[in-house]
Amino acid sequence: MKIGMIGLGKMGLNLVQNLRHHQHQVVAYDLNADSVQLAAGFGAEGVHALEEMTVRLESPRIIWMMVPAGAVVDSVIDSLSPLLQPGDMLIDGGNSHYKDSIARAARLAEQDIHYFDVGTSGGMEGAQHGGCFMIGGNREVFASIEPLFQDMAVENGYLYAGDIGSGHFLKMVHNGIEYGMMQSIAEGFEVLEKSAFNYNYENVARVWSNGSVIRGWLMELMQNAFSKDPKLDSIKGVMKSSGEGKWTVETALDLQANAPVIAMSLFMRYRSLEDDTFHGKVVAALRNEFGGHAVEKSE
Amino acid sequence: MKIGMIGLGKMGLNLVQNLRHHQHQVVAYDLNADSVQLAAGFGAEGVHALEEMTVRLESPRIIWMMVPAGAVVDSVIDSLSPLLQPGDMLIDGGNSHYKDSIARAARLAEQDIHYFDVGTSGGMEGAQHGGCFMIGGNREVFASIEPLFQDMAVENGYLYAGDIGSGHFLKMVHNGIEYGMMQSIAEGFEVLEKSAFNYNYENVARVWSNGSVIRGWLMELMQNAFSKDPKLDSIKGVMKSSGEGKWTVETALDLQANAPVIAMSLFMRYRSLEDDTFHGKVVAALRNEFGGHAVEKSE
Repeated sequence: MKIGMIGLGKMGLNLVQNLRHHQHQVVAYDLNADSVQLAAGFGAEGVHALEEMTVRLESPRIIWMMVPAGAVVDSVIDSLSPLLQPGDMLIDGGNSHYKDSIARAARLAEQDIHYFDVGTSGGMEGAQHGGCFMIGGNREVFASIEPLFQDMAVENGYLYAGDIGSGHFLKMVHNGIEYGMMQSIAEGFEVLEKSAFNYNYENVARVWSNGSVIRGWLMELMQNAFSKDPKLDSIKGVMKSSGEGKWTVETALDLQANAPVIAMSLFMRYRSLEDDTFHGKVVAALRNEFGGHAVEKSE
Repeated sequence: MKIGMIGLGKMGLNLVQNLRHHQHQVVAYDLNADSVQLAAGFGAEGVHALEEMTVRLESPRIIWMMVPAGAVVDSVIDSLSPLLQPGDMLIDGGNSHYKDSIARAARLAEQDIHYFDVGTSGGMEGAQHGGCFMIGGNREVFASIEPLFQDMAVENGYLYAGDIGSGHFLKMVHNGIEYGMMQSIAEGFEVLEKSAFNYNYENVARVWSNGSVIRGWLMELMQNAFSKDPKLDSIKGVMKSSGEGKWTVETALDLQANAPVIAMSLFMRYRSLEDDTFHGKVVAALRNEFGGHAVEKSE
């Protein structure tokens, strides 16, 4: 098949390689000319304008967006949609909010353009060698692009999840689970690190990766990380986030769904961004007020 | 090698099969004669008294206890230790508290009996077909029984973790992580279940098991569970526990190690054991007191 790829960052470029590996033709576009050049090196037709992309694709076109969630997606859609025709298919493979995807699909439906929200997991390695895709959109139209996912995913690694929005919703929840699993693993190593025992964490992650109940990809990644830095001395414990954990918690609140562990994992990330906290000052001040307990003065 | 197995419950019997599969001789004992018969069916020498076991093993004996944690372990040790000789090796493969294991090892050391605390993971399947073992005890003596673990574990699935106590400590923390991971996965499905989308959870667990960041054995088990009961209608959401999550949290408190997600996972298990709660009554009463908010009367 022939597919347009918009956005040639780490994920986009790996997807291009994945598609090329499966003999698909790719028309590749990015604002950054160097990235277009890289994609051309993988055998894609590099283009430097959306107009160039759309003329190189025959209708019904299949165009995959792999750009940062938020305003960039709307901007691409605004520029692209006048160049598209009824029946064309537009895929958002990024981490968009599912409500945005539903709204965008409705907008594009007025032009009879089919929109798919595709949650992509598995990291860069997955994007290149076989990833995990959660797909929302029209079921009948999906059948026409299903062969792409059969090629790009690992075995059993794609799912037509349901109506538009269901793909990004599923990916959002996947990431929420990921926050909780990562925090759980992290707390376990925290307890080991503060214990009187002298564990080799690479070995611990290895044995936990083989035959244990908690084995899985995250534990294998821990083994890799500890093999390079046995006590993680070279990095700080700053836990950034890119939005989907927060969305999962917001969604849980809207739905009155209990998700205290995912919420706590998110709050622990926020805590890690601050060296000192205002709530800490509040508690210290109160202990001082009622009990005369000493406070530490800020410098 | 020839090994004594005390305790022929689900785990013990599976370990007997595993040992027999690797051509080890097993002398098998349990209070329950039926279990001894089952072990004999797998090719073990069944015995009905500890005295029978010790005479059938040559010194230095290797005896594996696979009995419930707590008083039963002490009771077995009390009955067994007079029958043992200096140099004999006693393995506790159950879920004992690491502090108990340290105390038992010290007691047996007075008799020059070597004690190993072995955390066992991987469930019944692992016990039978290759498990995960975390081993604490004397490193030099361990070398003499290491071949057993090479046979019984999956590849890279055993670890000499360090001094006595380190095996059960590691298993305790493993289970603490397991609590957090399970609660994280569970909360994700809770959000899906309360959403407007109509997911097939077996398919969701399948796609998340293939290529995603959160893939692992627990997710594969979810796929199995949903394949048998698509909405888990046949079971109640009662989350029991057997102690190690609690020990992990207690240990985290002693060490001042941050483990809020593991602690919350434990508390959510406790919450699930009650249909109604006293703290719920307290909050409802207070809302009524200050705001006149209606309370629900108990029947």
